[in-house]
This record gives sequence, C-alpha cells and structure tokens, in this order.
Amino acid sequence: MRALRFDDHLHITNDEPQPQLVGGEAIIQPRLMGICNTDLEIIRGYMGFQGVLGHEFVGTVIECADHAWLGKRVVGEINAACRRCPVCLRGDESHCPNRTTLGIDRRNGVMADAFALPIAYLHAVPERIPDEAAVFTEPLAAALEILQQTHLRPTDRVVVVGDGKLGSLIVQVLRLSGCTVTLIGRHPERWDVFRSQGIVCLHTADAPDDEQYDLVVDCTGHPDGLATARRLVRPRGRLVLKSTFHGESTLSLSMVVVDEVCLIGSRCGPFAPALRLLERNLVETEPLISGTYPLQSGLEAFAAAQGRLKILLSP
Amino acid sequence: MRALRFDDHLHITNDEPQPQLVGGEAIIQPRLMGICNTDLEIIRGYMGFQGVLGHEFVGTVIECADHAWLGKRVVGEINAACRRCPVCLRGDESHCPNRTTLGIDRRNGVMADAFALPIAYLHAVPERIPDEAAVFTEPLAAALEILQQTHLRPTDRVVVVGDGKLGSLIVQVLRLSGCTVTLIGRHPERWDVFRSQGIVCLHTADAPDDEQYDLVVDCTGHPDGLATARRLVRPRGRLVLKSTFHGESTLSLSMVVVDEVCLIGSRCGPFAPALRLLERNLVETEPLISGTYPLQSGLEAFAAAQGRLKILLSP
Repeated sequence: MRALRFDDHLHITNDEPQPQLVGGEAIIQPRLMGICNTDLEIIRGYMGFQGVLGHEFVGTVIECADHAWLGKRVVGEINAACRRCPVCLRGDESHCPNRTTLGIDRRNGVMADAFALPIAYLHAVPERIPDEAAVFTEPLAAALEILQQTHLRPTDRVVVVGDGKLGSLIVQVLRLSGCTVTLIGRHPERWDVFRSQGIVCLHTADAPDDEQYDLVVDCTGHPDGLATARRLVRPRGRLVLKSTFHGESTLSLSMVVVDEVCLIGSRCGPFAPALRLLERNLVETEPLISGTYPLQSGLEAFAAAQGRLKILLSP
Repeated sequence: MRALRFDDHLHITNDEPQPQLVGGEAIIQPRLMGICNTDLEIIRGYMGFQGVLGHEFVGTVIECADHAWLGKRVVGEINAACRRCPVCLRGDESHCPNRTTLGIDRRNGVMADAFALPIAYLHAVPERIPDEAAVFTEPLAAALEILQQTHLRPTDRVVVVGDGKLGSLIVQVLRLSGCTVTLIGRHPERWDVFRSQGIVCLHTADAPDDEQYDLVVDCTGHPDGLATARRLVRPRGRLVLKSTFHGESTLSLSMVVVDEVCLIGSRCGPFAPALRLLERNLVETEPLISGTYPLQSGLEAFAAAQGRLKILLSP
C-alpha cells in the first residue's frame, strides 16, 4: 500500500506492508489526515522517529474483531498505553512508560492507505461533524488539556503567544470561559476569524511591555516566543508551555522563583469534550485550513505546511 | 550604631546612622538574627544589594507612634509594599513592584543595633515561643508557602532534595499532612532529627532512579540538585523551585512539556501559620542551630554559615 514515511528523509512508498489486525485493534482507512508542527519537528530529528508519519486523522474502520466498529467513522487518541502499569492504573495512560505513539514513537502513523490503532482509543464521530472539522479533534483535545490542568476563571486575563496551528485552536477554546483573550502573533492575515470572536489580536512587535496576564500560553515553538510569553505573566501567574522543541531551551529559573510563576507543561488532551465542542459549533475550523493535498503529493504538502495553518492530506 | 554591611565587601561598621522613625513604621532592636542562604548569595552579587544585611530576626519594638507595639517581642515580614498598586490590591503584596525588601532590596536589614519596618508587617510572638525558635519564623513561612501554592494530598509521595537550612524546615512542614516524605541530601550527620519524625533520609549518591514522586521540592541551590529533582518527578507531577541562583539555570523544557510537569516557583510565605506551628511545637528548630555568634563577629559567622545549618547572630 501507499505510505508517507520518514526514514532519515521524507518519501512516498508504494510498498508499505498492509497493517495486520491484532487483538484489541482496528484497521482504519483515513478519510482526511492533518499535518501538525510535531510532524515538522520529526522530520528535523525530534524523537528520532522512523516510519509512517501522521497522528491527526478522521477515518473509517475497515477491519475489527468487534463488528460494532466496522464501517464507523472515527477519530482516535494517539497514545497506545499498556493499561496495566501503575501509571496507567492511576489514570495517566497518555504518560504510560510502555506507550507507543501514533506516527511519533514506535508506531506507524496515519499517512497511508490504512493503519492500526487499539479500539480502546477510538471515538465515533457524530454525524453533524463533517470530516473537515473532525480531523481537528486531536489538536483541539490538546488545546482543551490546558483546562484539564489549570483552573481558568471567567475574570482571568489570558494571552496566547503564537497564531499558528495550535494557537488558533487554543484562543478559541479559552475564550469560551468568558475571560478576555489576547492573541499575539506575526500573521495578521489570519486574524479576521479571531477578531469576529472577540479576541484581541496584536502583532509581536506591538506586544505590551507592562501587561500582567493571569494565564499565558506559549505555542510559538521558538525561544523568542517563550521570552515574550514569560515577560507577560504576572507574579503568581501561570505560563503554559505547549511547544516541544528539538533541543534545549533556557529560562531564568531565578525569576520564576522570585515571581512565583507556575510553569505548566501541556501535551495531549481529552477527545470526548473536543468532539462535543465541534458538534456544538463552538470552534471554527474551516478558516484554519490552508490547503488540501492528495497523499500522493505528501512531500509537496509538507513543504507547504511550513509557516502555514492546517494542511490536510486526502487519500 | 553597629551594623554588618555589604558594600561590594562584607564589613562591620560602628558608624551606621540610627534608623529614623517614619509614619507607619517601628524601630526594632534585634534579639536574634539568622543567616540565610539568600544572604550568602547576596555577598556573591545576587540582587546587587548594598547596605545592612539580614532579614531573619526576632526583636523588640523600641520606637513606634502606635504605643501598643512598644516593648513587644516581634517577628516581621520582609517585603515592604506600597499597598496601593493593583498588585497589592489583589492581595499579592509580596510581589508589589514598588516593594523594598529587608536586607535584600533597597532597605537596610536587621544585622545592626536597630532597624525599621512598617508595623503592618509585624507579628507579636506568643510567649510560649522562645527567641531561638521565633527567629525561624521567616524561613518556616517560606516553607509553608508551598502549601499555599499547591494542594498536598495526604496520600502524595513527596521528596525534598537538599538537606540545608530551608530543606530542614520544608520536610518538617510537608510531613504534617500525613504524606510520605523522603529527604535527599549530602549531610547524614543532620538526619537524626528527621528520621525520628518518620522522614526517610537518603544520600544523593543513593537517590532512586525509577521513583515517581507526586511532589518534588528542590532547595539545593545547585544545578545538579535541580537535575536530580527533575528526574524524580512523575509525569503530571509537580516540581517546586525554592532556590534563587545568582545567574541562569537551564532545564529541558521539552521534557517538561512531554511529561506535563508543573513547575512552581516559590518564595516568601505566611507568618501567622508559621507562628502557630512553632507555638504548637510541631516543628523542631533547636537541632537546626549550628552556632550563635555576637554581631561583632559577623564576618566569622558568615564564614561559618557556608555549608552549615542555621547560624544565628546575637546583639
């Protein structure tokens, strides 16, 4: 079958072996796949991954021992955990030390004619959600993870630094609490949709010097973005880190102590509430799509995804 | 009057001007003063402070417009805030941008025959608490700040890295919740008191490799201590930073994101509960005193304080 692989270099193969059905898993045919910044980091060496890329998808179950799933339109969580170790048993499956991660760590990803995933991680997609929205479930869940980790008060002053793929979903989720939300970025051409939602949008060059935000989210993926974010947190405020970098990053920890800032690392999130937000039309995804390419043009799609919003792949 | 000053070098002067009584302040004669690691950092250049050193004290009010305070035995909070700005008005006085800090930032400290502090920051010391215990109120309040910032569950597994001046108080406070507490340090000669309190004490060389602690506190003041602490935090666990360094410190922020660790900078804390703990004899301070020197021998005392537990100064 066809697959988009990274083996020290990105390439399309027509000879990828079909995934084999094993106990508790399903074989899924993708309907749409999304390119994430993590995919772009992987092809720069992040995680040392080799294999079929991709973890954002909406697809159809084509093989499964449990026939109730057959033909179902699904999205899926990306961390396949052991469900037996102490970490899993305390409810932290996405941190299982034995986990494989779809298209990121020791498990082939979704950018192929078919792929395998445990049925425990599948979620049926409600009929009202079109494929073009459902494919955003995984990054939208990652945005919701912020609200799983920290209490956002409706009176909080929030700023999101980074108007890229993830920031575009995070601002939309955080505004739903009723708090004030400011987006700081470098892409004014993307801001109409956010402004229509009551989000204040500022260019990085116009970032305030003396503002004191209760909650700041860095999703820039750049050290200078992190520095901007750090500057905007009030004493005793919270700084959520959403960027995974390939390499080290530094921060003055003394200032974190003196200002008693709370730094919160944040990664994958809950799928069920993400699907509920999409079904209720509370998050706009259509304006976030920068282009759709067939899988066969995957290399072109990856080139286009640099510095753009969401690039999708179709079968 | 006499004073122990830092002006690019540490020295004793006999010509320090008497502090002048201004509105809302009291003049205090110290009964005992403590040397803190922050003092040791200051004489290495931290904060760029010049002036009379010292912020830990128990003393007697000798001048005050409000006569109710005269003759009272007191301890005092160290951040003198403006009490007018938005930061103060939301209850974060210890983070007031206009604050001066006793013996740390633009306010002469306690290591003198007398010093001034706003009466708003004074706390009368209950009779049951001897001077030798009351002088620990400020660092004990700093230990309690951890519990102000994060919810410690009685079932949490806690480790404190660093068996120095502050770590010795932090383990004693955290054990009071009923949680398991492990202390990791380099000074077995200090551990009898902690072991008698049910605290597990381990040498840094024997620090576990695979333990997963819910809450980890770094109070080592050293980058290698921070690395040990980081390694011991479970995914989704909390790492409290208690060390202020002179200079930058680095941490792999990608791993903070992947493991969704919460980093909590922690500084000054609440005095009233610290006094209650001392009054109830729930914290042992006597074994933490490594020596007492007269103010006149302040230079000797500072030399002795390096790598020791608490060194006190008497008038």
